Amino acid sequence: MKIVTCVAPINMAVIKYCKCPWLIFYILTRCEIFFHCFLGGKRDDDLILPINDSLSASLNTHVMCAKTTIMSSPNLKENKFWLNGKEQTFNSPRLNSCLKAIKDRCDQSLPHLNWSISICSENNFPTAAGLASSAAGYACLVYALAKLYGIEGEISDIARQGSGSACRSIYGGWVQWHKGSSPLGLDSIAQQLFPANHWPEMRILILVVNDTRKKYSSTIAMKRSVDTSTLIHHRANRVVPERIQTLSRAIAEKDFATFAEIAMKDSNQLHAICLDTFPPCVYMNDVSHAIVSVVHAFNEYKNDIKAAYTCDAGSNVCIYLLESEVQDLVSWINYVFPKSADITQQEYYRGLPLEQRNMDKAVFEGLNITPFDVDLLKYIIHTNVGDGPEVLKDEQAHLLDDNGCPKSLHF
Amino acid sequence: MKIVTCVAPINMAVIKYCKCPWLIFYILTRCEIFFHCFLGGKRDDDLILPINDSLSASLNTHVMCAKTTIMSSPNLKENKFWLNGKEQTFNSPRLNSCLKAIKDRCDQSLPHLNWSISICSENNFPTAAGLASSAAGYACLVYALAKLYGIEGEISDIARQGSGSACRSIYGGWVQWHKGSSPLGLDSIAQQLFPANHWPEMRILILVVNDTRKKYSSTIAMKRSVDTSTLIHHRANRVVPERIQTLSRAIAEKDFATFAEIAMKDSNQLHAICLDTFPPCVYMNDVSHAIVSVVHAFNEYKNDIKAAYTCDAGSNVCIYLLESEVQDLVSWINYVFPKSADITQQEYYRGLPLEQRNMDKAVFEGLNITPFDVDLLKYIIHTNVGDGPEVLKDEQAHLLDDNGCPKSLHF
Repeated sequence: MKIVTCVAPINMAVIKYCKCPWLIFYILTRCEIFFHCFLGGKRDDDLILPINDSLSASLNTHVMCAKTTIMSSPNLKENKFWLNGKEQTFNSPRLNSCLKAIKDRCDQSLPHLNWSISICSENNFPTAAGLASSAAGYACLVYALAKLYGIEGEISDIARQGSGSACRSIYGGWVQWHKGSSPLGLDSIAQQLFPANHWPEMRILILVVNDTRKKYSSTIAMKRSVDTSTLIHHRANRVVPERIQTLSRAIAEKDFATFAEIAMKDSNQLHAICLDTFPPCVYMNDVSHAIVSVVHAFNEYKNDIKAAYTCDAGSNVCIYLLESEVQDLVSWINYVFPKSADITQQEYYRGLPLEQRNMDKAVFEGLNITPFDVDLLKYIIHTNVGDGPEVLKDEQAHLLDDNGCPKSLHF
Repeated sequence: MKIVTCVAPINMAVIKYCKCPWLIFYILTRCEIFFHCFLGGKRDDDLILPINDSLSASLNTHVMCAKTTIMSSPNLKENKFWLNGKEQTFNSPRLNSCLKAIKDRCDQSLPHLNWSISICSENNFPTAAGLASSAAGYACLVYALAKLYGIEGEISDIARQGSGSACRSIYGGWVQWHKGSSPLGLDSIAQQLFPANHWPEMRILILVVNDTRKKYSSTIAMKRSVDTSTLIHHRANRVVPERIQTLSRAIAEKDFATFAEIAMKDSNQLHAICLDTFPPCVYMNDVSHAIVSVVHAFNEYKNDIKAAYTCDAGSNVCIYLLESEVQDLVSWINYVFPKSADITQQEYYRGLPLEQRNMDKAVFEGLNITPFDVDLLKYIIHTNVGDGPEVLKDEQAHLLDDNGCPKSLHF
């Protein structure tokens, strides 16, 4: 019997990878549109090859992570897979293509290669956060499979076949996903540019927009084909290559203002291109745009670029900023987006500690800024750049018991 | 003493002209961002030369129009200008450049060329509609000045110098604004492609989004420079020329589906490019996007493209559709965007008559569509394609009395 448990980070892209599949299923839920249109801009659907490089930071796994236990045993009758406490079919093409790619690459004489496996995976962050969990999940799965079958070397190309941006979660710190040029995607791999401790002052605030306070009560579901934006190729060919270079240099030199400006512009451009698909993809809502304008107002007040927003396929907004600015920005957020008194500090502020210090109201009154409605934000996650996937040595960490069954189906 | 009164249409672009000036003043009002970033993409700031052609329909002046009376008299001591009942400074550079261009072009021996003038201008539609009134206003002003000073021939280039898209309101029906190539903008003029009666079945619904029901209570004002989108030139050079051709042909052949698809795509692309400026320009809000998704759902239900949305620099949505679809679409709008009972039919439905016939609720329930909150829409304007500016012969129509003073300062 073999068992391994790993954690892997989520990653937050500052140069985005955008894929808009030709067939898309999207749901407008109470005026917030959720698209199962994953971020992308793929060359190939099965291999998940992007049309431009992307760049992200992997975030501290002690705050948010995917955790996966895999057991291989001759006593297991069949392959089983549990995700967040619910048994899933093992027939997922992506799961199987990752498993096959790992097995193809390992020592074929391994005795446990033909044993059945049990996989149990969890995210330690609420799915309500609306954060893309598939990147951390597939990175964790592939990393754990690699450990189980004793594979050394590059595995980000395998993680990529599970979920495109999962390849970036295979490494810690600042990571670039090279689009590569091989038709088979052999060189479409992730690379660590700088380790997690390269820019230790960098912090990330994730503002989770309150989806439970629905403004509208309608659900409209549509299934349609999508015309990809005609702007996407201009972006891929002309815009991204220069941005990747400038951004890498800004990270190398810890030049926050340059880093931040590119991050904001690239996020805006991703959402611009989603809006230019047909029918349009809209991820950000009025609250997301309000956060964006608060960040612009904050930078203006500071007379320098001190915070950078970036948004993925949802209404939440992620803010990159240096440790020295965290308190000030949080006091802005607290003023502009007040929370109701019945939400505890512990519920509201998650992750790394946040010292509470509220800015003088007179500052905001002087800037003619008044608070929005209460509870537009659900909570705030405070985190930083962290390491890549790792094996948890502690036996207590295993999610599966000795029989290959989840220890707990509720968490 | 000479007096002339004219009306001019507003126009609704289906291929957009987008200008994003380098210096922009924008105001985030309660999470709805109003930018004094007029639609554009200018080659030259003073001459208002666009970087791509645009195409619009002029709308029925009996429903919405700008109305202007100009009096010239030796008894007037100075030039005066009233707009919507309020006296304005006559020092506006754009007003004066239009006046100068008209006077330069007219017979220099005219006795009244040196008399002072009184200008009184009104929009007959509520400014609350958030509809660009400057296009109709400047078209009306320039048309009235041309009549006053007896000018024949092209004046759309002069209207353009007042407000870019005003040049399109100089003509009725379907109008193309040629960007031209002259550095002085001599060939940047509007041209009627088809008269108003070419496609008599065409109707326009303007859904005025309720701005008085503010969701957020904050006002953030910022003054910043704007980096123009890097995508705008790709649009101007690669996308628009083909769209103009295809759209003109679709109008010629009364091919609604092709017309509608291009109109929707072009609106989406305009807003995509605004989002890709820095800081981003956001005009549409959650309600606008909800309307967009209702139109997509309506077309899907009809299994054909039967309605086309298009949005300008605001949250309102304009819908092009054929007369035969108006009742059905209005019944969808009424179901999805209910109004509260205290708003009268007369307040809510404006313009051309709308027959009330509500669709069976079961249809919506079958489509899993439920109503949004009440009063997200303020009212609906029903109109059609109409003629260009004209002189009102009736003396009662004059907005100025014999002394050159506004007959009424309230309307």
